[in-house]
Amino acid sequence: MIFDLAIIGAGIAGVSCAVYAKRAGLNFIMFEKNAVGGQILFINRIDNYIGLELIDGISLVEKLSNTLKNLNIEPISQEVIGINKERDCIKILTKENTYISKTLVIATGASFKRLMLENEEKFIGKGISYCAVCDGYFFKNKIVAVVGGGNTAVEEALYLSSISKKVILIHRKDTLKAMDYLKDMLFKKNNIEIKYNTIVKKLIGKDFLENIVLENLKEKKEYNLKINGLFIAIGMSPNTFIFKDIVNLDEYGFIITDEYMKTSCDFIWAVGDCRKRQLRQLITSASEGAISAISVYKYLRGDYISI
Amino acid sequence: MIFDLAIIGAGIAGVSCAVYAKRAGLNFIMFEKNAVGGQILFINRIDNYIGLELIDGISLVEKLSNTLKNLNIEPISQEVIGINKERDCIKILTKENTYISKTLVIATGASFKRLMLENEEKFIGKGISYCAVCDGYFFKNKIVAVVGGGNTAVEEALYLSSISKKVILIHRKDTLKAMDYLKDMLFKKNNIEIKYNTIVKKLIGKDFLENIVLENLKEKKEYNLKINGLFIAIGMSPNTFIFKDIVNLDEYGFIITDEYMKTSCDFIWAVGDCRKRQLRQLITSASEGAISAISVYKYLRGDYISI
Repeated sequence: MIFDLAIIGAGIAGVSCAVYAKRAGLNFIMFEKNAVGGQILFINRIDNYIGLELIDGISLVEKLSNTLKNLNIEPISQEVIGINKERDCIKILTKENTYISKTLVIATGASFKRLMLENEEKFIGKGISYCAVCDGYFFKNKIVAVVGGGNTAVEEALYLSSISKKVILIHRKDTLKAMDYLKDMLFKKNNIEIKYNTIVKKLIGKDFLENIVLENLKEKKEYNLKINGLFIAIGMSPNTFIFKDIVNLDEYGFIITDEYMKTSCDFIWAVGDCRKRQLRQLITSASEGAISAISVYKYLRGDYISI
Repeated sequence: MIFDLAIIGAGIAGVSCAVYAKRAGLNFIMFEKNAVGGQILFINRIDNYIGLELIDGISLVEKLSNTLKNLNIEPISQEVIGINKERDCIKILTKENTYISKTLVIATGASFKRLMLENEEKFIGKGISYCAVCDGYFFKNKIVAVVGGGNTAVEEALYLSSISKKVILIHRKDTLKAMDYLKDMLFKKNNIEIKYNTIVKKLIGKDFLENIVLENLKEKKEYNLKINGLFIAIGMSPNTFIFKDIVNLDEYGFIITDEYMKTSCDFIWAVGDCRKRQLRQLITSASEGAISAISVYKYLRGDYISI
């Protein structure tokens, strides 16, 4: 059996793609090695998903699961371990089986790099965040720290500086590797303090993060810092390793697409966090899933002009 | 007072922009001449908004209103009647007042053209639809008619042909004005019948649309047709008249933007149904609103490179 479409990943982008594919009458297959919802399961509070009032990640995942159930879409619980791109179809290899599809939508997501400190998991959504646009508003007029020295860390510090009272940027080296124009903006802000040569050693708090222990690596001195929130911005790892030889990736491993989500291959699309893009939000992922499904539908009907 | 941002329109795109603008700490103003929600108020069933299970338009509008209330955002109930673009700011004129803003997001929406028949309003969501991707799935394996002869009508007929049992395309002239490649695809479909020189004269049904009365204009004959659904695809009017001299529009009046929603003017963005785009869905509008707000935030902080 040759499927019209294979979707890899059942996070919000993949689910959205599946919903629109189903409604467009496509015969598709969906893979998810873990659970429906992906990274959403780790989100404590979501209050910027338009149409939903404040919700926790687990409840949103329940809604997504119900949506799939109501449309009789059942993701296959197998890990995709390889992809063979043929001239005009795709072979999808799992440990258990091989599947053939005319098109592929990659929705495998990405994960934020962790500091790997004790209690880091415990404090996620309770003082620790990996996304200022998502969670910055919870720290209005409060004191926050950002860890990192690249573009993302400086972006996060800038964003937070217009909401929070004070932002402390913590970087383990003595210079920031972010682009110059971002650094220029950073240095102009009165409420951002930069701590160079510094790492976070410990996370302290009861239910919520209250203090962090920092170490100045040059002076070999440890000290305590009272903060309301800690934003960890040391990078993101897209789950794109098995696709690296079949579609173009950017320098960080994110898949490059056009505005219709099409990759460098005519019958492969990519959506959500695994895709190179400006704004990483649940609402943008959901939108991208829908756009990809309609693009696939048009490709399959032989429409090369309007997509 | 000079605002950071003015948003015109409080449909889902405008509301999404407002939510992200608020969270980014922008000092903004929002205009809505009618009610929050815009066209959503007229939707009977929404079952493809990812994250929400089946919902009616009025309930979704309630959620949007609550979102605004919770963030203390109160749209100004004045109609914007003119826009003056100055060198680096915008003057927004209402009958009551003049407002000055550094940036503008246009979210004024569009409306589907109506056949102007008796009972047309009454049957919307009860047999009559203006969007196959939105509502086609409700007519799985049923008989539907599409009215129109342009690209949109042919697109709608093609989309429906893979879901419905039979599609009848009704067009008042003797040739379709859709593009050739679309017509080629149309003519190849076994389950699409085309009725040329034909108009819809009457809509008949009790609670739901059941029959339509057609007239063949050449033979001057009226007859009855039993259908389950009628898709009206005779065009869409974007609410963009007052912007025609300040940003570039396409031939149908939709505002042209880049993928960050920026128009031909550096400090004006456009989102949602008033924007030229491929897929007109609530979820894409919500996503666009978020993207525009973050683009505005970056513009205001002086960031010309990363947007």
